[in-house]
Amino acid sequence: MELAKAVQSEQLLYKQIYHYVVNQIERKEWKTHDKLPSVRSLATQFNVHRLTVLKAYQLLKKEGKIYVKDKSGYYVQPQITKDYEYSENPIIAAYTQKNHLSEIHRAPVTYNFSQALIDPNLLPNHFFSDYVKKVFDLYPKVLATYSTVQGDEELRELLAEYFVKQFKTHLTKDHLLITSGSQQAIHLISETFIKPGDIVLFERPSYSAAIDIFQAQGARIMTVDIYENGYDLEQLENMLKQYKPRLFYTNPTFHNPTGYTISVEQRKRLVELAEQYRCLIVEDDAYHDMYYEQPPPLPIYTYDTAGTVIYVRSFCKYISPGLRVATIISQPSTMPMLLTSKSLIDNGSPLLNQKIFLHYFSSLRLHQHLEKLRIALQIRKEMMEEELAKTNWKWSSPQGGLSLWVQLPDNLSIKSLLSKSLHHSISFVPGVVCDPLKQESRWIRLSFSYENEKKLKDGMKQFVELAQRLEEENNLNR
Amino acid sequence: MELAKAVQSEQLLYKQIYHYVVNQIERKEWKTHDKLPSVRSLATQFNVHRLTVLKAYQLLKKEGKIYVKDKSGYYVQPQITKDYEYSENPIIAAYTQKNHLSEIHRAPVTYNFSQALIDPNLLPNHFFSDYVKKVFDLYPKVLATYSTVQGDEELRELLAEYFVKQFKTHLTKDHLLITSGSQQAIHLISETFIKPGDIVLFERPSYSAAIDIFQAQGARIMTVDIYENGYDLEQLENMLKQYKPRLFYTNPTFHNPTGYTISVEQRKRLVELAEQYRCLIVEDDAYHDMYYEQPPPLPIYTYDTAGTVIYVRSFCKYISPGLRVATIISQPSTMPMLLTSKSLIDNGSPLLNQKIFLHYFSSLRLHQHLEKLRIALQIRKEMMEEELAKTNWKWSSPQGGLSLWVQLPDNLSIKSLLSKSLHHSISFVPGVVCDPLKQESRWIRLSFSYENEKKLKDGMKQFVELAQRLEEENNLNR
Repeated sequence: MELAKAVQSEQLLYKQIYHYVVNQIERKEWKTHDKLPSVRSLATQFNVHRLTVLKAYQLLKKEGKIYVKDKSGYYVQPQITKDYEYSENPIIAAYTQKNHLSEIHRAPVTYNFSQALIDPNLLPNHFFSDYVKKVFDLYPKVLATYSTVQGDEELRELLAEYFVKQFKTHLTKDHLLITSGSQQAIHLISETFIKPGDIVLFERPSYSAAIDIFQAQGARIMTVDIYENGYDLEQLENMLKQYKPRLFYTNPTFHNPTGYTISVEQRKRLVELAEQYRCLIVEDDAYHDMYYEQPPPLPIYTYDTAGTVIYVRSFCKYISPGLRVATIISQPSTMPMLLTSKSLIDNGSPLLNQKIFLHYFSSLRLHQHLEKLRIALQIRKEMMEEELAKTNWKWSSPQGGLSLWVQLPDNLSIKSLLSKSLHHSISFVPGVVCDPLKQESRWIRLSFSYENEKKLKDGMKQFVELAQRLEEENNLNR
Repeated sequence: MELAKAVQSEQLLYKQIYHYVVNQIERKEWKTHDKLPSVRSLATQFNVHRLTVLKAYQLLKKEGKIYVKDKSGYYVQPQITKDYEYSENPIIAAYTQKNHLSEIHRAPVTYNFSQALIDPNLLPNHFFSDYVKKVFDLYPKVLATYSTVQGDEELRELLAEYFVKQFKTHLTKDHLLITSGSQQAIHLISETFIKPGDIVLFERPSYSAAIDIFQAQGARIMTVDIYENGYDLEQLENMLKQYKPRLFYTNPTFHNPTGYTISVEQRKRLVELAEQYRCLIVEDDAYHDMYYEQPPPLPIYTYDTAGTVIYVRSFCKYISPGLRVATIISQPSTMPMLLTSKSLIDNGSPLLNQKIFLHYFSSLRLHQHLEKLRIALQIRKEMMEEELAKTNWKWSSPQGGLSLWVQLPDNLSIKSLLSKSLHHSISFVPGVVCDPLKQESRWIRLSFSYENEKKLKDGMKQFVELAQRLEEENNLNR
C-alpha cells in the first residue's frame, strides 16, 4: 500500500512540473519564444526522473503551450486565445483557464455561497465608530506615526496575554508579529522560508489562496489527504520521510474547505513527526473562535517545544475584515527572518488599524458579539443542511467554520452546474479550486455565512432544484 | 573613458556576487556546511567571468564566511560572532554588520537627523478625527468590508482626476493600483518583475529600502551616477546597452538622498532610451509635492507612450504616515501582473484607510496644509544650512525634499562620527547605506524634517562641534 501511494505521488509529479511551467509562462517569467530549461536541469531542480519532466513537456506541447525546435530544445509558444466551453461567460472562461477562486468571487451574484466571509450585518459595525473616536482621543497623532515593523507593542502585549490565558502556554509580545490580514502572514512565511523548488506539503483539499501563494513562490507542492477523522498518519510520515518537505501548511481546526478538525492525539504526533523530519509547520487557525458549541482542541502550536510551529491567527473575519489585523506567533528561531521580510514588504502594518482593533478586542463587547455570532452561524448552517437533506448529496456536519463540503452525485458535471448557477446568480466553489493538485472532483464548498437567512433559504432551494434538473437532463442524455 | 567605466563596473561585479552570497547565508537560504554553487554555475547565473566569481569566493573565504573542502568545492562556514570595532554599541555593531538603515533608526535619539520623515506636529492630525467620523457616517459597514484588490474605486477615481489635472495626461482609475505605502508598491513591483539574477539599474546613491528590496529578490544591481545636473547620458546609455537591465529604479524629483532633480530634457531622453533598450522604468515620486518654491518638472511617466514607466506615488509622508496609502500608476501592459501579485500579497489594502484618505484628500484643507508645510520645511532646511555654513563641508541646496546630502572632509571617519553622534543622542545616515554598491564614502544624509526648530538648531550645533573635535583629534594623531 505504501508503494502504491509512492507510485501515485510520483505520477502526480509531472502535473506539478506542468503547472510550474504554465505558471512561469502566465507570469511572463518565460516569454514567447524563450527557451525552456533543459529536461535534465528541470529534473535536477525538482529532484525527479527525467522522464517525469519529459512527460510534463509532452503534455504542454500537446496543449500548444510549448513547441520543439529541431533538436535544440523546448520553447514558449505564442499564446493563442482559445474558445472555452463556457466562453460566453467571461467569469467561467477565466475560472476554467486558471482555476482561481478570485475569478468566481468577481461574479456579482444574488446568492453568494462561494465567499467564506461573514455577513456584514452580523459584524459589530455600529460600535466601531466609538472605538475609533476613543483611539483619536487617546493617540491624537496616530495617523502621523508609523507602527514598528513587528506591530504595535500595546496590541502585542494584549494578544500575548489573551493567548496565554486561552492556550495555557508561555508566550510574550516578542513572539508576536502583526500582519495586515492572515493572507499577508501566509505570503510573508512563504517568501521568508520557501525558495523555488522547495517542497511544501498541503492537506488535500486545502485553502486555495494559500496554494496560490506557495505556488507563485515556486514551491513544489505535495499533499496529504485529510479525512473526517484526521490524517492517515502512515501516509503523513511517509511523505515527510520520503520528500523532506520544507514546510507543512495546515489548517487543523474547522479545516477549510472540509470543516474537519484534527484530534489532540494527531496534533501531538504531528509535532513529533515535524521535529523528527525537520519540517516547519504553518498552522493557519482562522476559524478557532468560530465553533458552534464546544471550543476546539488547543492549537498544534501549544504542543511545540522546539520552534517547529509557526501559528497564524486571523481576527478580521469575525470582527472587522476591513481592519485587516492578524498575527503570527513564532519562536526566536524563526522570528528574526520573518521580521526582515516584513520590514521589506511594507515596513509594518498601519498603526490606526492596530489601535482600533486593540480597543475593540479588549472590550467586553467582543465576548458578547462572539456568543451571538456563534448562534447565528449555527442557525444558518442548519438551514443550509435542511435544504441539502432534500438531496442525495453527502456531507459531514462540521462543528465550526463557515462552510459545508458537499459531495455531489457522479452524474452531475460541476462545470455545467457552476455555469448554470452563475447564470441564476448563485455562486459556489468547485472542489478543484481547493485541490493543490487541481484534479476535478465531485466536491463543492458551500458557505452559509455570507447571506442572510431568507436569502440562504431561497438561494439553496433554487440551487438544489437547478442541480436536480441538470442531473435529470444528464440522465436523459445518457 | 567608456572602457574605463566598463572595467570599473566589471570590478564591482565581484562585490555584487559577494553580497549575494552573504545575503543567502544571512537569510539561511544556504545553511551551515551547505555546498555553495560551483564557480561555473554562478558565473553563468550572473553572466560574468569565472574569475569574477572566484574573486568573490576568495574574499568570502578570507572573511571566514565560507570554506573549501578538498577539491569538492566551497561550503558555508559556521557563523562566528565577531567583535566589532564599535561592538560596545549594539546599534553600531548591527549597522556595521549590515549597513542597514533600520539599525540606525532603532537608536532612540534626542536629535533625529536620520529619519526622512515629517515632524508629526506639522501634520494635520486634529482634522483627521472629523474625517474618520464622516467615513463611519457615510459607510457604516466600512470595517465589515474588504476593499477590491486594485483599491477602492472611489479613491482611484479621485486620484485619477487629480493626476489628470496635475499632469495634463490621460489616465483613468483603471491605471491605478492602491498599495499600503510606497514601500509595498516597490516590493510588489520587485516581486512581480524581477527574478534572481535579473539586472536592476539604480541611481548611485539611491533609496536604501529600495536597494534592500531588490537585493532580497536576488537582483543583480548595477548603478548609474546621479549628479546635480542629472545623469551622464553616455554612461546611462552604455549601461542600458551593455547590461540590458530589466528595470531602472529612479527617484528623479528631489532625489533621495541627494535632493537632485532630473531635467525635462533628460526625462524625455530617459524614456526614449528605456523604450529602445526595453528597460522598465520605476519612477518613485515620493517628494513631488515637497517643493519649497517652484513645482518640479512633470514626472517621467507623463512622457511615456509605450507603457515603459511604472509610477509610484506616496501620499503618506506629508499627510498621514499612519494611513499607509500610496498608488501605482501603470499601463495595461503591466497592470494585470501587478494585480495578480497584489492579490497574493494581501488581497487588497484596508478599506478604512483608503476611505479616510479619500475624504481628507478631496478637502480644501489639503491645499492649505501643503502650503504651510512647504514654508515650515524651507525654514528648517535653511536653519540646518545655517549651521552647516560654519563648517568646511560641502552640499548643494535642494529645491525640495526632506534632507541635505553633505560631503565631509577627508580626515573624518564617518564610522567614528556615527558612533560618537549616537553616543551624544544624534543620528544621521552614513552615505554607504544609500550606496547600492555599499562602498564607504565621505557623504552623509542629514534630514531636517523630523525635529522642531529648536531641537534642529541645538542638535546641529552639537553635531558640528562634535565633528570638528573629532577632526582635530584625527589631525593630531596623524
